[in-house]
Amino acid sequence: MLTFEIIESEPAGHARHGRLVTPHGEIRTPAFMPIGTRATVKGVWPDQVRDSGADILLANTYHLGQRPGAELVAELGGLHRFMGWDRPILTDSGGYQVFSLAELNRITDEGVTFRSHLDGQYIHLDPRSSMRIQNQLGADIIMAFDQCPPGQSDRAVAGQAVERTVRWAEQCRRHHQRSDQALFGIVQGGVYHDLRRTCAERLIELDFPGYAVGGLSVGEPYAQMVAVLRELVPSLPANRPRYLMGVGKPCDILAAVRAGIDMFDCVLPTRNGRNACAFTATGTMKLRNERYRRQDEPLEGGCPCPACQKFSRAYIRHLFLAHEMLGPMLVSVHNLWFFQRFMQRLRDLIPQGDWATMLAEFPVAQEPLANESLTGEATE
Amino acid sequence: MLTFEIIESEPAGHARHGRLVTPHGEIRTPAFMPIGTRATVKGVWPDQVRDSGADILLANTYHLGQRPGAELVAELGGLHRFMGWDRPILTDSGGYQVFSLAELNRITDEGVTFRSHLDGQYIHLDPRSSMRIQNQLGADIIMAFDQCPPGQSDRAVAGQAVERTVRWAEQCRRHHQRSDQALFGIVQGGVYHDLRRTCAERLIELDFPGYAVGGLSVGEPYAQMVAVLRELVPSLPANRPRYLMGVGKPCDILAAVRAGIDMFDCVLPTRNGRNACAFTATGTMKLRNERYRRQDEPLEGGCPCPACQKFSRAYIRHLFLAHEMLGPMLVSVHNLWFFQRFMQRLRDLIPQGDWATMLAEFPVAQEPLANESLTGEATE
Repeated sequence: MLTFEIIESEPAGHARHGRLVTPHGEIRTPAFMPIGTRATVKGVWPDQVRDSGADILLANTYHLGQRPGAELVAELGGLHRFMGWDRPILTDSGGYQVFSLAELNRITDEGVTFRSHLDGQYIHLDPRSSMRIQNQLGADIIMAFDQCPPGQSDRAVAGQAVERTVRWAEQCRRHHQRSDQALFGIVQGGVYHDLRRTCAERLIELDFPGYAVGGLSVGEPYAQMVAVLRELVPSLPANRPRYLMGVGKPCDILAAVRAGIDMFDCVLPTRNGRNACAFTATGTMKLRNERYRRQDEPLEGGCPCPACQKFSRAYIRHLFLAHEMLGPMLVSVHNLWFFQRFMQRLRDLIPQGDWATMLAEFPVAQEPLANESLTGEATE
Repeated sequence: MLTFEIIESEPAGHARHGRLVTPHGEIRTPAFMPIGTRATVKGVWPDQVRDSGADILLANTYHLGQRPGAELVAELGGLHRFMGWDRPILTDSGGYQVFSLAELNRITDEGVTFRSHLDGQYIHLDPRSSMRIQNQLGADIIMAFDQCPPGQSDRAVAGQAVERTVRWAEQCRRHHQRSDQALFGIVQGGVYHDLRRTCAERLIELDFPGYAVGGLSVGEPYAQMVAVLRELVPSLPANRPRYLMGVGKPCDILAAVRAGIDMFDCVLPTRNGRNACAFTATGTMKLRNERYRRQDEPLEGGCPCPACQKFSRAYIRHLFLAHEMLGPMLVSVHNLWFFQRFMQRLRDLIPQGDWATMLAEFPVAQEPLANESLTGEATE
């Protein structure tokens, strides 16, 4: 089903470089997963996603369960075949989207009733249905159905979410039907270290093949996110992959890798790409800016991505001003390559724990100012 | 500058298979040129355009002259480099768009004043400025600035357009500055055979390296278009390439090739592709249709295009219903491959003049019913 091996560890720290083996191939960790919400990474062909260096991508249970429907995907041979991606896939549980996108009707210990963002119909989602949908989609890694409260939730709300998340995790284990899919548990608990620790301990008793940290990067300050990770992550089993959901920016990824996280997902490469925002090692560029009008150079000097090999900033700016699809397509591809390049450098430097070199090569990963909040989200 | 060689001719007819050599490479004729109006074939990477089999593409002087401006394109090394396409390019003269897209202010013998569709500014276009813009863009083949009257114009309007077109063609010859660009003349004359013949004779006296037929496929009945071509095309110099502008559908292309036309351009592959309409040998498919919901087969069986190699009709339908960019991207690529496959088969069958085989393999190219009008247009 799933094997995880740590290849190298940071000498005096928590970072690890490993290999996660799934039925659809290997994942080099720390890994960044591009988002294919509706069974497509927006504006990018699957071959181009692979060429960027991505070993795995994430698709969303909430969206696919509604359209085209998990039964149809199963009938058509499962998600890998449906979307033309024969490498590993992870599906989330739908929980995050229910709480962030849908018009919520009712949350009880039995699950969540919400109105579809597509047609307003009432839909019920619970551990059993989340497992059924994810079993039908057929991803290599699937996620337990959790309750993800808002980032600024008080202790009582966060505590109740932990209770439900643990109970639901246990139910997910029972309802999960396919031995070729690895089910990960999700640690909730907001910014409350003791709740996080309790949640982790109870999930570890259930013995999941991997553990995710949910409910971070949802509006809390950067420092608080890092503090939770530093406290929590070392208490998760060292021999299991650890996944920080919905994160994030390069600075977040660097901090989380140093805390011992192995997997990430975020919409930033493609969402920013569609909005004419390119990532580079030294910062981001807004391509619509007049300053790029005459610049006959690539988005990022030395970048081997197919957008930088052939097209100038001036051309890409023209495409965005003319509302041409190729603009979002080019910058999305560049950003996917950028994030994978960033992860590869992290993997390279973990054996030396050489974060000074990492920051010298990627100044964009420097810590944000104290009052800056996080923007990573789990779907686009 | 430009050499044209006829390799094979239809034994008892007018069709020819040839080779047109430009500074940026060879064009196999009959050739179909995809449209890159704003220096991009919409939704398709240049490498994918090339992989479809396209030897040359068309870009639009009217659009590029306004945005980003021909001076900027020249400063950035010309259109080939700007758009990352190192193969042949043809630019039109801007005339067709002035008459079809712009809010016209005044047409005189000196040129056309119109309001930009972008910002409402008054712009003057005439033979001199069209040549200057096209010289700056730097395409391999450029077009004389002509007057293209509506398809149903009466004889007086069509006659006046011929007068202006011939006078302007002569002026274009004088203003054209670059010996590495071939300037083609454009025959106007509406559906009036004698006007077409007069226009052709006077342009031939000016000795252009190629001749285009303009003002067809602009709303007149199919039979009328074919009648004009059959009458006109054989009177054009046999040793020069002949280009039917803005055409078209497979049936139009087949009829025009049989009349002796060598080059075509049309937005249909990409415009229809963006609208979920796929071309196949047996007809077109509207991918949003419910009938494709469960169809786990490619758009067209046996099609070697990258969309058909990997994706099902059901998946592509899902992409369109979910408003995902990849839907238009996939069908545009398929359609580009379809048109190039169609042209390759035409080239194969010209030496035998075997149109029965062509129609058997491509029933989609059968003549339309008598009352069906044409829809091809020169830009998208």
